[in-house]
Amino acid sequence: MNKNKIKDFISSIDPLDKTAMNKVVKYMDNLTKPIGSLGYMEIMTAKIAGIKGYLPKELKKKNIIIMCSDNGVVEEGISSCPQNTTALVTENFTKDITGVKVLANYYGAELTVVDVGVNHDFNNNKILNRKISYGTNNMVKESAMSLEQALKAIESGIEIVEELHKKGVDIIGTGEMGVGNTTTSAAVFCALTDMEIDKIVGKGAGVTEAQYKVKKSVVKKAIEVNKPIKEDVVDVLSKVGGYDIAALCGCYLAAAKYRIPIVIDGFISSVAAFCAYKLNPLCREYMFPSHLSAEPGACYIMEQLGLKPILNLNMRLGEGSACPMAFNIIEASLYTINNMGTFENARLDKDNYIDIR
Amino acid sequence: MNKNKIKDFISSIDPLDKTAMNKVVKYMDNLTKPIGSLGYMEIMTAKIAGIKGYLPKELKKKNIIIMCSDNGVVEEGISSCPQNTTALVTENFTKDITGVKVLANYYGAELTVVDVGVNHDFNNNKILNRKISYGTNNMVKESAMSLEQALKAIESGIEIVEELHKKGVDIIGTGEMGVGNTTTSAAVFCALTDMEIDKIVGKGAGVTEAQYKVKKSVVKKAIEVNKPIKEDVVDVLSKVGGYDIAALCGCYLAAAKYRIPIVIDGFISSVAAFCAYKLNPLCREYMFPSHLSAEPGACYIMEQLGLKPILNLNMRLGEGSACPMAFNIIEASLYTINNMGTFENARLDKDNYIDIR
Repeated sequence: MNKNKIKDFISSIDPLDKTAMNKVVKYMDNLTKPIGSLGYMEIMTAKIAGIKGYLPKELKKKNIIIMCSDNGVVEEGISSCPQNTTALVTENFTKDITGVKVLANYYGAELTVVDVGVNHDFNNNKILNRKISYGTNNMVKESAMSLEQALKAIESGIEIVEELHKKGVDIIGTGEMGVGNTTTSAAVFCALTDMEIDKIVGKGAGVTEAQYKVKKSVVKKAIEVNKPIKEDVVDVLSKVGGYDIAALCGCYLAAAKYRIPIVIDGFISSVAAFCAYKLNPLCREYMFPSHLSAEPGACYIMEQLGLKPILNLNMRLGEGSACPMAFNIIEASLYTINNMGTFENARLDKDNYIDIR
Repeated sequence: MNKNKIKDFISSIDPLDKTAMNKVVKYMDNLTKPIGSLGYMEIMTAKIAGIKGYLPKELKKKNIIIMCSDNGVVEEGISSCPQNTTALVTENFTKDITGVKVLANYYGAELTVVDVGVNHDFNNNKILNRKISYGTNNMVKESAMSLEQALKAIESGIEIVEELHKKGVDIIGTGEMGVGNTTTSAAVFCALTDMEIDKIVGKGAGVTEAQYKVKKSVVKKAIEVNKPIKEDVVDVLSKVGGYDIAALCGCYLAAAKYRIPIVIDGFISSVAAFCAYKLNPLCREYMFPSHLSAEPGACYIMEQLGLKPILNLNMRLGEGSACPMAFNIIEASLYTINNMGTFENARLDKDNYIDIR
């Protein structure tokens, strides 16, 4: 896909099915409860109906895409972990030991682990090889990647969702692994908005106060050096982003295109969602935020996206780890709406309930 | 139980088992993740260990106690529903049609439906009869109940938890049904704190703007007329409370006494939790907030309790409806901690992770 093909793809995204949504809202308003009193459970149910065109009973096939890649900027000392942590954890996603995998097991979700640019050659058939390079360049010195590489990463995300779509996946989650990616994510978000860098940069997995200062100055410097064009998402991604963010951006675009609900995880995943939203605001209609990350910038991204996370667990693990729980709450919402009684069989009078939504 | 016996009961509550908690925290700090990065999932797991004395694998028996009662204050026109809604919905809890029952079914939890003062005689063996009277008095005219009735309601809550404890219940949820109980709850919370009435009173299940004004003035008047003693929880409950709130307060006390984790639902349930906390601050250690209710006062109660809800679903249904989801997230937390790998089997170096909790 060249830039024009991706543009065409993006502009071919359709809005939600308002007829299906209205039908479900009308149905929900006749269930035995004060009107709208199930809050976001009702809003999520209506969104799912708008995506699928009907009210499904469940979401059987659940898959979390984990984009793994390395970031050249780690040589500035912005992370507490050595770079090879990316490769080790990527490998560990294929075993039953990491947070996201254990939670996915608990909730019956599968993982799609993707090497989109890890600085390591894997010999593991459970890791999809979409490697663009052995990690990006150091963004304080030069552009993190070329425009072509950024487009290739977005394309990888699109293709992986396409494949899951063919397999009949009902809902997708988004995760990532890449030492240094809270730094790149902060840079991307700040470059796309007028947010203050000091408010957005956080301590990620855990850095010392000294490293934290470096991290903030690194984001500033990367933006100064590369001068990303605020209005051009792909330019921003290529200059101060990472393959993981770009690839996840592609996932959000394709989920909207193929009408699959897609769950946002933490800070990095939210920034990628914001990129997709900037490329086509309709993408937001297909997104389901899971939790509010402990990263300080997370709330600003949610604000800019106009979405409210349903979980507040103060997590800062990434990996897509909050997605399985969000899948479950969405499924519980569908189950509830599908199985509650109506005002009639509850022998209650609907007219006593005022709509205060 | 007279006042002194309840006092003795309250003062016999023990703190959490710090040794068990520290052991679990140490164990969690060795799992393959940045230290503390699972946030409240880790905090909840440590609390469960502190309650049980060890780290359980699961919480098999889950039960939601729903305290149902009527409130004399409804004759002031502070609710959109007629009073008989309380009886109808109480009856409906025993069928598979209400929100809380459907969600409890989905998550494998049971309900204990209690008539603690509904204005109706039930002929249904699935409803526990603990009726104190056919609803409270109108609190703008006189004390909602006598001191003896308040104590009896608290005692009912204690006894019901005692029975569940004997049956080996692992975790308890708290729900309620009672037309007018967001009004009484607001009155209780305002009487126990110096909170502004206008900030705490909300629209409950749904009232018109005119009814909303009446509701606020009713809370003011009830407090003026009865002059509840801020420092005396039982006095406050008896003058401006309801049987449901008092009985749930008893549940929280007994859960702490018998070392059973107990989940807070919405506004009314939170006010009852606050009452128990005022009676003995140790009660808080046994409480797990579920969601942040849409009722405007809910966040202030959580603040006063020093607890953070894990779900944000903008719900205003009550019934204990958020408890099944909270049970599940707590169980998922236990599963995750029990099943994740350690730094050793992840081939990662723990020393690279800084503790930023």
